[in-house]
Amino acid sequence: MEAVVDRRSPWKALRYRKFEAATKRDAVLREAARTFNEKGFHSSSLDELAERLHVTKPTLYYYFRSKEEILYECLLRGLGELEEAVDAALIASGSGLERFVEVMHGYAGIVLGDFGYTTVHIGQDPLSPQRRAQARRVERRVAHKLQSLIAAGIDDGSIAPCDPKIMASTFAGALNWITRWYRPDGAMSADDITGQCVNLLLAGFAPRNEASFPAGRRKSRVK
Amino acid sequence: MEAVVDRRSPWKALRYRKFEAATKRDAVLREAARTFNEKGFHSSSLDELAERLHVTKPTLYYYFRSKEEILYECLLRGLGELEEAVDAALIASGSGLERFVEVMHGYAGIVLGDFGYTTVHIGQDPLSPQRRAQARRVERRVAHKLQSLIAAGIDDGSIAPCDPKIMASTFAGALNWITRWYRPDGAMSADDITGQCVNLLLAGFAPRNEASFPAGRRKSRVK
Repeated sequence: MEAVVDRRSPWKALRYRKFEAATKRDAVLREAARTFNEKGFHSSSLDELAERLHVTKPTLYYYFRSKEEILYECLLRGLGELEEAVDAALIASGSGLERFVEVMHGYAGIVLGDFGYTTVHIGQDPLSPQRRAQARRVERRVAHKLQSLIAAGIDDGSIAPCDPKIMASTFAGALNWITRWYRPDGAMSADDITGQCVNLLLAGFAPRNEASFPAGRRKSRVK
Repeated sequence: MEAVVDRRSPWKALRYRKFEAATKRDAVLREAARTFNEKGFHSSSLDELAERLHVTKPTLYYYFRSKEEILYECLLRGLGELEEAVDAALIASGSGLERFVEVMHGYAGIVLGDFGYTTVHIGQDPLSPQRRAQARRVERRVAHKLQSLIAAGIDDGSIAPCDPKIMASTFAGALNWITRWYRPDGAMSADDITGQCVNLLLAGFAPRNEASFPAGRRKSRVK
């Protein structure tokens, strides 16, 4: 960002100011998500958020009009991360199941992150009806993409025939729940827990006759 | 309850008054759970609860000291229902998997109910540290019982070897998530959705070689 000290062109300085504003906006959103995740939406105040960011409350109002608008933007970030993970899987090569396994691992990382955690655990309830409807539209779009990936896996025979909506809900719920009890200082790493949960979902609770399981397919499910 | 008009014995009348008090207390708790589930804990007020029950706020204070105490009692009811379901499975006959399937179906019914929904979706965050610790103790006891049921299933070979804690979290998360999007007026019944979700969890997302699956075991997993 050498442009910041280059005063020959006002345009570069403007570009830098825009970059700086976006960075600060991001910092507000991330700290807000962390605050919501720690204390819940209703117990979090803009006073406290300003304090955590070492700024005044009017500074926050320069970027956002309300706590509710901040939550809305946090949810769009979380949903955006999920949509990116699904989009990447939709254009990747491999069987439907292989690509779905990628999504499951990506999903687990996202919901353990700041915006993903807010998306799952704070959710859309505190939003105004208008913003809730907008967030719901994005959520539905992501859900439909995910269900089409599952349908592709059923079509190519790599995923057992099932209702894609129920399968999507089953894996999402299972991975969301981990974030409720997982502690970074616990005995198992997040990757360990996620891996074991994904394997359980792929193989099922009832024991398999391993001998009858084709080697290639088995590899993809213990990934 | 003829005792209510029988004034010859004051003891019967007292017994009736106690019964009546317990019934009213139950009614307060159930309506409170419904209110929390609809509006969230922080957006629910005792004023509104009193209005929904057609009583005055002081009447509520006769039964409970605070909104937080009401939530605590609701959570104990929810956890109590879950514990009953696990206790019944622990003393039932059948393989570990068969008894675990019973628990999964019971669990789904409970978390779709008033107190179970509060237990899963409102949770212990709004409680005072003391009451939160007490609720956590009950929750841990139920979790340990559930994990011992899973361990019994692994021992008798009906459940695939896994970490019982992760398996318990996987099924609970999957079933909890259904309650987030299930609508009684939707296309599928709660039993249908639960049944499909339980079957997915038992059989896994990856297709099985059905021919190699023993008939007896298969029956228990499609229950």
